[in-house]
Amino acid sequence: MTVVSGGIGGARFLRGLLHVLGPDDEVTVIGNTADDIWLFGLKVCPDLDTVMYTLGGGIDDERGWGREDESWRAKEELAAYGVEPTWFGLGDRDLATHLVRTQMVQAGWSLSAVTTALCARWLSALRPAVRLLPMSDDRVETHVVIEDPGGDGRRAVHFQEYWVRLHAEVPAYDVVVVGQADATPAAGVLEAITDCHVLLLPPSNPVVSVGTVLDVPGVREAVTAAPAPVVGVSPIVGAGAVRGMADQLLTALGVEVSASAVAVRYGARARGGVLDGWLIDTVDQAQLPVIEAAGIACRAVPLLMRDLRASASMARAALDLALP
Amino acid sequence: MTVVSGGIGGARFLRGLLHVLGPDDEVTVIGNTADDIWLFGLKVCPDLDTVMYTLGGGIDDERGWGREDESWRAKEELAAYGVEPTWFGLGDRDLATHLVRTQMVQAGWSLSAVTTALCARWLSALRPAVRLLPMSDDRVETHVVIEDPGGDGRRAVHFQEYWVRLHAEVPAYDVVVVGQADATPAAGVLEAITDCHVLLLPPSNPVVSVGTVLDVPGVREAVTAAPAPVVGVSPIVGAGAVRGMADQLLTALGVEVSASAVAVRYGARARGGVLDGWLIDTVDQAQLPVIEAAGIACRAVPLLMRDLRASASMARAALDLALP
Repeated sequence: MTVVSGGIGGARFLRGLLHVLGPDDEVTVIGNTADDIWLFGLKVCPDLDTVMYTLGGGIDDERGWGREDESWRAKEELAAYGVEPTWFGLGDRDLATHLVRTQMVQAGWSLSAVTTALCARWLSALRPAVRLLPMSDDRVETHVVIEDPGGDGRRAVHFQEYWVRLHAEVPAYDVVVVGQADATPAAGVLEAITDCHVLLLPPSNPVVSVGTVLDVPGVREAVTAAPAPVVGVSPIVGAGAVRGMADQLLTALGVEVSASAVAVRYGARARGGVLDGWLIDTVDQAQLPVIEAAGIACRAVPLLMRDLRASASMARAALDLALP
Repeated sequence: MTVVSGGIGGARFLRGLLHVLGPDDEVTVIGNTADDIWLFGLKVCPDLDTVMYTLGGGIDDERGWGREDESWRAKEELAAYGVEPTWFGLGDRDLATHLVRTQMVQAGWSLSAVTTALCARWLSALRPAVRLLPMSDDRVETHVVIEDPGGDGRRAVHFQEYWVRLHAEVPAYDVVVVGQADATPAAGVLEAITDCHVLLLPPSNPVVSVGTVLDVPGVREAVTAAPAPVVGVSPIVGAGAVRGMADQLLTALGVEVSASAVAVRYGARARGGVLDGWLIDTVDQAQLPVIEAAGIACRAVPLLMRDLRASASMARAALDLALP
């Protein structure tokens, strides 16, 4: 089966999914790379790493990103040199991942090959087997258009700056995904969509996580045309994002912040969209008819991934909706 | 005044020298860069860093290299990825220096400019003022010829591999300094030699520290022709190096391991060499006539830099020999 994943939401959903699958199942994860960033000369892939660390048992569970038992001594020293940015948390243990990746990328390896090499440490012992593919080997970067702090018009900042430095607390006017139009799907991505028996979209940000994967040229078309059922999980519960800043970014794009509006935006596959089914939270049960009227099968279940049990039962519900 | 420096020996000598100089003095250090190495995609300059950390108060005094209060978490993680080499100690705090340097070098800055930028943190408050120049902005790398562990002939390994991994415990047959013939002195190096009023060679390795600086095309000639007196300090006390592996490498080059043999190898400036004066240890007092017969003024004083006081009195003796 194939899962499109952003960072924390996707990774926790995947952890639940692995729990309900059998040991002989195989999961291919297509990871978002549009929030990748070069920092201090290092190529950092936050979403790929969050998936890799979460499934491989190396994640800091409290934060949801980065390595458990982390320290920040290199970061303190970078700050002592006066080097910017100081707002991004590169931990000492985490740094090793970025060093290996950067060295390989600079030696000419594709991001796919590098990701496979890094995952050999984290994922190779997993049963069910998990394979992590970046959505593309090309550089694709989400930028968010904000008010210029100088007061003179607007400017675009890297998604990480908007999210980590500005805590998504300033108004977002638009989302610009640099390099997207010229990107090609990484090796295996289209096959993973076309050849799977279920395709799942976890409760990740529909704009900057799932959206940027779907917008890699060829991917959305492949999802629409795939033989397998496609089921997504709403990242919106009630009037806001479960986690992250999906609400602010949806507003920037003129989309209402609700489980049904996101479903309608994705659209039913029968009508050229990407969904056959959509899981919403029980608090949003009233929106079920709107979603079904849009041609998307819908079920309301508890969507908060408080722990592995909750994530697993959510994954089970998504599978049930896909393969009734 | 100008000082040619390798790593630990040069740095400790410099610390003593700064102690005996007045606050208005100025010291230019020409640092050896031939033991620089690229590790994990990072440009590491061990000798420059040892000088910078030692004089700036950031050194681990016990080891003599790297940062005080260091941790090794990134290194452990690199090893967990199976990435080679595992024998070089890149500490978490130290990593920041290499990250800043590498990012600047890859952005097109010269090593000189990068060194100045790094030293702004460590050396800018020092009185007497200290300026650290790399010997060259070009890549120059010392390799040591050893027996091939496979048993099939000989092969050259990077100096750091010989020293750090092999602990200089295998026979060295030759020293090859890659890139040396095509290197040019960094900006300010020749001027620092020509315009100073004293030039000092601390007790650093005559082959791979002072030697590699002198062998940058134009440097040895400038030292021979400099108006200022040139005084060196023997790195050999009795029948061995005070520290490091000068003895093994001198043997590889067919040079007798003694204070006098090193002096004779450097040669008197009046006869085309680089020395006017040479400090030896009191245990080597009997070699004084041989050295003076080679045209080099000589004095025997205690040369072990046990502490700042010992280093300072050694530096004072070198200055006295230079400017009687």
